Amino acid sequence: MKVLVPDAEPFLQLKMPGVQFAPYRRDADLPAEAEGLVLWGLPRGRRQTAFELPSLRWVLTLTAGIDHVVHDLPEHVTLYNASRLHDAAVAQHALSTILAAARGLHRARDAQAQRQWTRPHDLWTLQDRSVVIWGHGHIGRRLAGMLEPLGARITGLRSGRGPGEIRQALAGADVVVLLLPSTPETQGLVNAEVLAQLKPGAWLANFGRGTLVVTTDLQEALTNGQLGGAILDVTDPEPLPEESPLWSLPNVIITPHVASATQDILQRAAMFTQEFLSDLLRGVEMTNRVERHKGY
Amino acid sequence: MKVLVPDAEPFLQLKMPGVQFAPYRRDADLPAEAEGLVLWGLPRGRRQTAFELPSLRWVLTLTAGIDHVVHDLPEHVTLYNASRLHDAAVAQHALSTILAAARGLHRARDAQAQRQWTRPHDLWTLQDRSVVIWGHGHIGRRLAGMLEPLGARITGLRSGRGPGEIRQALAGADVVVLLLPSTPETQGLVNAEVLAQLKPGAWLANFGRGTLVVTTDLQEALTNGQLGGAILDVTDPEPLPEESPLWSLPNVIITPHVASATQDILQRAAMFTQEFLSDLLRGVEMTNRVERHKGY
Repeated sequence: MKVLVPDAEPFLQLKMPGVQFAPYRRDADLPAEAEGLVLWGLPRGRRQTAFELPSLRWVLTLTAGIDHVVHDLPEHVTLYNASRLHDAAVAQHALSTILAAARGLHRARDAQAQRQWTRPHDLWTLQDRSVVIWGHGHIGRRLAGMLEPLGARITGLRSGRGPGEIRQALAGADVVVLLLPSTPETQGLVNAEVLAQLKPGAWLANFGRGTLVVTTDLQEALTNGQLGGAILDVTDPEPLPEESPLWSLPNVIITPHVASATQDILQRAAMFTQEFLSDLLRGVEMTNRVERHKGY
Repeated sequence: MKVLVPDAEPFLQLKMPGVQFAPYRRDADLPAEAEGLVLWGLPRGRRQTAFELPSLRWVLTLTAGIDHVVHDLPEHVTLYNASRLHDAAVAQHALSTILAAARGLHRARDAQAQRQWTRPHDLWTLQDRSVVIWGHGHIGRRLAGMLEPLGARITGLRSGRGPGEIRQALAGADVVVLLLPSTPETQGLVNAEVLAQLKPGAWLANFGRGTLVVTTDLQEALTNGQLGGAILDVTDPEPLPEESPLWSLPNVIITPHVASATQDILQRAAMFTQEFLSDLLRGVEMTNRVERHKGY
C-alpha cells in the first residue's frame, strides 16, 4: 500500500512492512497509485489534486476538525481524523486560559508592561464554579478530568441537544466552553439569543471553530456587560483582522488558534500515523473514522 | 473570651456562645482584656501594640506565611496560621501561571496588544514534564493533585532536605515550584549555585517568599539563558521597584503577590475564624498551630 505523508523529518523515518511511504514534495507530481493520504499542511489546490487520485481509498487528517476537508472529499474515500492526537494539548490550553481569566493573568501582563505592581480584588478560582462544556467528546472529557480537582462543577452538553436542555445548562454557567465541531447545524449557534440566556458576567471560551459564534453578537454582549469576558482561540473571520474591536475589549483573551499546537507535534503526529496504519493493516475497528453525514 | 477581629462586615456578623467579638477600629484603643487576636491587615505599629496586650494568649494570622509576625510576638503567646484557607487559591494560581508559561499566554497577550495574530511553534504542555514542588506541604499537595491529570511527573521536595537530594531533584526538573516558607534557613536558598544545578531552559516559579531567591542571581540566570523563564508572584524587594529589569525580561511572568487573593476572601476568612474558634473552645487538637522554632 502506498501512503502519501508530509515531507517532514519524523514522517521520513517511518518504516512499516507492507507500506510504502511517499512524501508529498513541493511541486512534484503525486503518485497515481497512492491508496492513502496523511494530511498535514497541504495547500488547498494540491489537496484537491490528491483527493482525486484514482486509487485513493482513505484520508487521515492529522487535525481534530474536518470542516476544511469534508466538502471536497469524494464520497467513496473514507475519512479519519486525529482528535486523540490533540486531546491533551487542547484540554490543557483551554484550562490555561480559563484559569488565566480567573486569576487575572491578562490584566497582570498589561500591568507588567507598565511596570506596575497593582493588586486586583476581584480574582476568583474554579472552586464551586459551574463550567458547561458544550461539545463533550474526547477533548471535553479530558478537560473535565482536569477541572474536577479544582472543585469546578462540570456539565457536559453534547452537540445536538434541544433548546430546553441548552437553556437550562447555560443559565447556571459561570464559564461556557465551546468545543463543538463546525457543521451546518452549529454555525452561528451562539448568537444574541443564546448569549442572553447566560448568567450576566459569565465567561465564554471558544476552542471549537470561530463560526460557532456570531461575532457581532459576541462584541455586543461583551460591550453591554452581559458577558464577563471571552476567551477566543478561534475567531470569525480568522485570522482576526487588525481592525477588529475584539483585540482591545477589556477581558477578551485571544490566542491565535494554537490550542493544539506543541513543539513536538510533528513527532507525535508521525507516531500517531504509525499506530493508525498498524491498526488499519490489522483490521482493528477504527474509532477515529468520521461519520461524514454528521460532519465530525 | 474576648477576641479581636478585623473591622470588616463578615467578621462583624460572627456570633458564638462564650466569645465576645471586638473589631479593631482605626485609631480606637484595643481592649486590654482581649485573649485572642485574629490578624488581617493590621498595620505594623498597631499589631505590635496588640501583641503586647496583657491578657493576650493566642494569635490567629489569616495568612499562610508567618514571617511578618513571628519575630515580634511574645514567647508565651500561641500562634496559629491559616494555610488551609489559602490552599486552593494558591494551588490554582500556581497552576494558572505554569500553564500560561507552557501555552505562551504572556506572549499571546503582548501580541494581542499589538493586534497581531502570530502563531508560535514552541508551545508545550505539562504532559511528561517533570515538576519539582519545593516546599511540599498542604499547598504543594493540592498543586500535585491538579498537575497529575495533566500528565506531569511530580517530585515533592520537603524543606530541610540535604544538598544531594536537592541537586538530584533539580537536575531533572522542567519546572521548579517554590512554596517554601521564609525562615533563616530558606532565605537566599536559591542562589547562583542552585540555579546552575537546573537543567538549562527550566522554569522557576516562586509562590513562597521573594527572599527565597537571590534576585541578582535570578536576573543573571534569566539573562544568560540558564533559565527558560521565571514566574514570580513574590519578589525581593516587594513590591518590585519600577526600575527592576525583571519587569521587561523575556519570559518573566509577574503577578503582584495575589496567589491567595480571591474576591470572597473576607467571607471565607470569617468562616475559617468561626471554625477555628469552635475547635479551640471544644479543645480539639489544632493542626494549624505554628511550631515557632521551625518558623512555620
